[in-house]
Amino acid sequence: MGAPAKSALVVSAHPGDFVWRAGGAIALHVMRGYRVKIVCLAFGERGESQWAWKKAGVSMDEVKAQRKEEAEKAASMLGAEIEFFDAGDYPLRLTQTMLDRMVDIYREVRPSFVLTHAIEDPYNGDHPEASRFAQEARVIAQAAGHKPDPERSYSAPPVFLFEPHQPEQCNFRPNVILNIDQAWETKRRTFEILAAQKHLWEYYTRVALNRGMQGGRNSGRAMTYGEAYQRVFPAVVEELS
Amino acid sequence: MGAPAKSALVVSAHPGDFVWRAGGAIALHVMRGYRVKIVCLAFGERGESQWAWKKAGVSMDEVKAQRKEEAEKAASMLGAEIEFFDAGDYPLRLTQTMLDRMVDIYREVRPSFVLTHAIEDPYNGDHPEASRFAQEARVIAQAAGHKPDPERSYSAPPVFLFEPHQPEQCNFRPNVILNIDQAWETKRRTFEILAAQKHLWEYYTRVALNRGMQGGRNSGRAMTYGEAYQRVFPAVVEELS
Amino acid sequence: MGAPAKSALVVSAHPGDFVWRAGGAIALHVMRGYRVKIVCLAFGERGESQWAWKKAGVSMDEVKAQRKEEAEKAASMLGAEIEFFDAGDYPLRLTQTMLDRMVDIYREVRPSFVLTHAIEDPYNGDHPEASRFAQEARVIAQAAGHKPDPERSYSAPPVFLFEPHQPEQCNFRPNVILNIDQAWETKRRTFEILAAQKHLWEYYTRVALNRGMQGGRNSGRAMTYGEAYQRVFPAVVEELS
Amino acid sequence: MGAPAKSALVVSAHPGDFVWRAGGAIALHVMRGYRVKIVCLAFGERGESQWAWKKAGVSMDEVKAQRKEEAEKAASMLGAEIEFFDAGDYPLRLTQTMLDRMVDIYREVRPSFVLTHAIEDPYNGDHPEASRFAQEARVIAQAAGHKPDPERSYSAPPVFLFEPHQPEQCNFRPNVILNIDQAWETKRRTFEILAAQKHLWEYYTRVALNRGMQGGRNSGRAMTYGEAYQRVFPAVVEELS
Amino acid sequence: MGAPAKSALVVSAHPGDFVWRAGGAIALHVMRGYRVKIVCLAFGERGESQWAWKKAGVSMDEVKAQRKEEAEKAASMLGAEIEFFDAGDYPLRLTQTMLDRMVDIYREVRPSFVLTHAIEDPYNGDHPEASRFAQEARVIAQAAGHKPDPERSYSAPPVFLFEPHQPEQCNFRPNVILNIDQAWETKRRTFEILAAQKHLWEYYTRVALNRGMQGGRNSGRAMTYGEAYQRVFPAVVEELS
Amino acid sequence: MGAPAKSALVVSAHPGDFVWRAGGAIALHVMRGYRVKIVCLAFGERGESQWAWKKAGVSMDEVKAQRKEEAEKAASMLGAEIEFFDAGDYPLRLTQTMLDRMVDIYREVRPSFVLTHAIEDPYNGDHPEASRFAQEARVIAQAAGHKPDPERSYSAPPVFLFEPHQPEQCNFRPNVILNIDQAWETKRRTFEILAAQKHLWEYYTRVALNRGMQGGRNSGRAMTYGEAYQRVFPAVVEELS
Repeated sequence: MGAPAKSALVVSAHPGDFVWRAGGAIALHVMRGYRVKIVCLAFGERGESQWAWKKAGVSMDEVKAQRKEEAEKAASMLGAEIEFFDAGDYPLRLTQTMLDRMVDIYREVRPSFVLTHAIEDPYNGDHPEASRFAQEARVIAQAAGHKPDPERSYSAPPVFLFEPHQPEQCNFRPNVILNIDQAWETKRRTFEILAAQKHLWEYYTRVALNRGMQGGRNSGRAMTYGEAYQRVFPAVVEELS
Repeated sequence: MGAPAKSALVVSAHPGDFVWRAGGAIALHVMRGYRVKIVCLAFGERGESQWAWKKAGVSMDEVKAQRKEEAEKAASMLGAEIEFFDAGDYPLRLTQTMLDRMVDIYREVRPSFVLTHAIEDPYNGDHPEASRFAQEARVIAQAAGHKPDPERSYSAPPVFLFEPHQPEQCNFRPNVILNIDQAWETKRRTFEILAAQKHLWEYYTRVALNRGMQGGRNSGRAMTYGEAYQRVFPAVVEELS
Repeated sequence: MGAPAKSALVVSAHPGDFVWRAGGAIALHVMRGYRVKIVCLAFGERGESQWAWKKAGVSMDEVKAQRKEEAEKAASMLGAEIEFFDAGDYPLRLTQTMLDRMVDIYREVRPSFVLTHAIEDPYNGDHPEASRFAQEARVIAQAAGHKPDPERSYSAPPVFLFEPHQPEQCNFRPNVILNIDQAWETKRRTFEILAAQKHLWEYYTRVALNRGMQGGRNSGRAMTYGEAYQRVFPAVVEELS
Repeated sequence: MGAPAKSALVVSAHPGDFVWRAGGAIALHVMRGYRVKIVCLAFGERGESQWAWKKAGVSMDEVKAQRKEEAEKAASMLGAEIEFFDAGDYPLRLTQTMLDRMVDIYREVRPSFVLTHAIEDPYNGDHPEASRFAQEARVIAQAAGHKPDPERSYSAPPVFLFEPHQPEQCNFRPNVILNIDQAWETKRRTFEILAAQKHLWEYYTRVALNRGMQGGRNSGRAMTYGEAYQRVFPAVVEELS
Repeated sequence: MGAPAKSALVVSAHPGDFVWRAGGAIALHVMRGYRVKIVCLAFGERGESQWAWKKAGVSMDEVKAQRKEEAEKAASMLGAEIEFFDAGDYPLRLTQTMLDRMVDIYREVRPSFVLTHAIEDPYNGDHPEASRFAQEARVIAQAAGHKPDPERSYSAPPVFLFEPHQPEQCNFRPNVILNIDQAWETKRRTFEILAAQKHLWEYYTRVALNRGMQGGRNSGRAMTYGEAYQRVFPAVVEELS
Repeated sequence: MGAPAKSALVVSAHPGDFVWRAGGAIALHVMRGYRVKIVCLAFGERGESQWAWKKAGVSMDEVKAQRKEEAEKAASMLGAEIEFFDAGDYPLRLTQTMLDRMVDIYREVRPSFVLTHAIEDPYNGDHPEASRFAQEARVIAQAAGHKPDPERSYSAPPVFLFEPHQPEQCNFRPNVILNIDQAWETKRRTFEILAAQKHLWEYYTRVALNRGMQGGRNSGRAMTYGEAYQRVFPAVVEELS
């Protein structure tokens, strides 16, 4: 019997976000044996489904079902579990019940790390709200008096913010570049599930290539595809590198 | 008949905060004749009472009672009044009724200054929420149309943010160092009321000594113990020094 | 038949704000044929009507009526439409219904640009709340699934933050200075409608003159009166100048 | 007789910089009738000519000659004049004589705007040094007592910082996106003059496409290729847009 | 025999700076018995004497003499001593000899506080250079091994940055407002010595009035004229206020 | 035959700096088989040798010799090599020759990482100057045309800034905490070589303990002593943790 598998948690406002911004990290850690769980807070049904609404007479439920199906396929292709909160988008309205559920997920998954949105985003208020929520739940999960259980030990995992659409406008300062070369093919194929957003396939392929070249420059080691992250808390290390 | 005594207000999320972060200022100003009132928003019953929850079968009410007793003893040793809001912690949930009460307290105490938490704290969402609340109430208290009374005159006091646990991660930029040498013994004895957090006794003793040395360097005057604060609003002065 | 007139939207917490901070821009764009609509979220009845409350026995409704009348006169003199939300001030409490109405206004007015408050203001929590609200509504207004209508096309307008009372304390960084020479007389006459705040007439006249001199220095072109704004999103241009 | 042509000045540390970072702006404004002058401070002979140094026995003069020829061809293809300062690179060492010449160029060209490097760049100290130099000369050029001439009138032009290789690490905050669709073919063909840096052809093509998509999102107007700039001084405008 | 008089040091790039930006503080502290010494690094002969250069045939020496005379009169009216370094302006070029002299002045004056320029100023490179120089000398003055003298004791004084012409563009964040009501008449009369800059008389009168009103708001105490300063180092205090 | 040993480079303004700020990292990496080389730019002879200057008649050469001896002993106890540049302190004056030597050292040592000072320090101008110098040399060392050698391959190492005396005043934002438990005894014993600065022994012991407790909180793993660092460039990683 070996050590228990490591795990990771991804808190995403809408379905596209975990694909464009963190699909490489998800697929890569799955390949390395991590259990990865995605919490998708809303279906992006109002604000990120322009194409669906072009069909006259389409209903909100139809749009949500369509986006849910896509999100499930995407999660599956990346190798991750997914849970939906159906909080509504534009604006995201997160409830106390959702917060409780989110805390339970932290405690159940016991993630080695958490991925979520940048703290600011003037283009999309759902993103910082998702980030705030993910971080609030993370802190509550470590509170001994929240559903107390003297047997449980738990410590709060590191948080990495994934890249927003327009990084400089969101005060996003990447301090980690993840080499996703091994996971790239999977990430790119997952883009194609999001069939209505073809323009973003190329956009985020370019982002991956440019972050990859930056990764090569910063490390002096060859790499092609990268994802940029901003670590929120200090890394605690046994050796500098 | 002399001038009325000066007064100060401390808005603290949890019981430990006013001790570790502002205990010196409280004791010092009490020694100088100030009336000091502490508003303690929550008992820290869920998030800051790990030791209490190690006892199997302990109830929330027992934990709260225990923390309340400690907080009362600590306030008393420092020479301050204390009022509890019992807003719940992790997360702190402040209501309209609490806001009204907080405004009344501002108007009743008429503080010369207010002490509260830093504006950011990625480790503890209750802290910035307490700070936001203290500042919102401060502004409302000066609104002529809030419980109007043409006889009353009132102006908003300066606000000093006290030091968070990991200052740089909270964007805390101290611009005031208070010499607490005279109050140190009282502050240190108050630590000992918080019997379950012995590791923090030494931590915050070291903080006080290091802030003291920085105070000495910045002023050229000998001092041993200090507390660091961040003034939110400009100081208005009659002479530079 | 010419092109439809351009339009602009102003989201103001209280009546004075759109006069002191954006009165020049409003009057100037009206002169240039813009339809300008002001949304005034509260009457400033509690926090910005000191003089009214000095009258013993005055009621909240009387104060609101008085401020509403002033605001209507001011909007009219500037040449703008005005709509009141009566959200209450100190603190401003914006509801879901108000958000829906605000989104409808965006879609109805289709503004070329939006003016609102700075994002931070430690002196007045209503101001950043108004700014947050204006920006949230702006993003929702462009969501295809919010009251979907396949016929509608809409894109989010640029946002300019107007100058707060103490700019540096609000992290206000002006990157646009608007020459309001042509509109100055109108702006100044509008000040006089706010009869109880005479000290601010001179204050904001000085602000306009100093921003005007800064505008002259930055452009090398003579101008006398200016208003400072902070553009939130990048300007997209066909030529640099 | 029409008005005199407008003009622009580009201050570039090394030959590649004005191509990758500002080639679109240069070609576009040339198309619009501007005189554009590039000042190329160094040949990038030591720090940006890896391929040249791979040839055993190559001399510094040979490398400089090769890079100069490339830079001249690139300037010519973009339609701009170019002047070399040969200040040496890694590190750039700018002299008083060069500063005097730079001031003379400002006064001779009388640019409508200036393009130069970002103010910070931890990857390349020559870039902020070039920016500092360009800005120092700009200020001196307007000093009445520098080579005084009562006939001359001159005012300092706006400065736009062009995009560094890793924008977030350089605190680069773009607030202007220039649509370079019309100039793109020229810019791209100019890349090909820099034959040894093929990997950057694709990198900066991706940058242009992604800035173009951002420009489309920010403006609601279709565009394909963009260049991002950071305006240093406030824009002074007659109308908001 | 009383205590020795207190003293203050002002390090100004050009003659106008100490008048517009710090004239109130100088006059006020002189009234309170301080010895105030101004170090004026350059005469502003090239960059801040436009009017003088309008006279055909005027020489550099004549311009410098004229500005020196003005500066002496201004210092005298404010009640301060003045020493000129004649370092040249636009750009200021400070030498090792000047640094040595500056250090000697610190040791001789033993100032209670130092006033100098803001740390950034994109409009005027001489200003941050003067600030850097003032601060470098301040640190050297306290070095035991610089012209060692075991008898001497000396500690570095607090530094206050005075207000630049366009504060937000210089990242100036005032945290001190000095009430200069008592000194205002003297400051205003000193403006009139700078006869060629009449437009600035009114500009800086407006600045003083607006800072005064801000001072009143921040303190709740009536005042009319203010000067804004940014404290560089933490204040070390015995009581909060 | 194993892989060549790893190595690290430390660029320190004065002798104390590498002990107080980086002594743990040095000793720890030596224990792990790294070659560590310290470049000590000045002896701190003027600004950091107060005690030495208390002896009447002591000469500069004597002070320097004394400090050099201490620095050699300290380096030796930590297990590192040391090279002195004797650049002079207060102010540090680094020459072109020193820069060339520094570049040669980079190429000879080929460090896996570099440790140096924070980028800002209003208390001590030598510190940011040392940091600037270390970073400039790092970039030049990778320039193919600086002492070209087609055989050489070299890429620039990551840079970690060590903790200044008053971190918040220096804009120091630690994003790495190094566990130095294994090296602590060595670090502490090295303090004792700096016999004249006993007050700093305790100060930096407290810093290490508090950074250790923060490390424990951030990681959830027990540790006692820590050193805080700020990584300048993004970490490039194969897995998030």
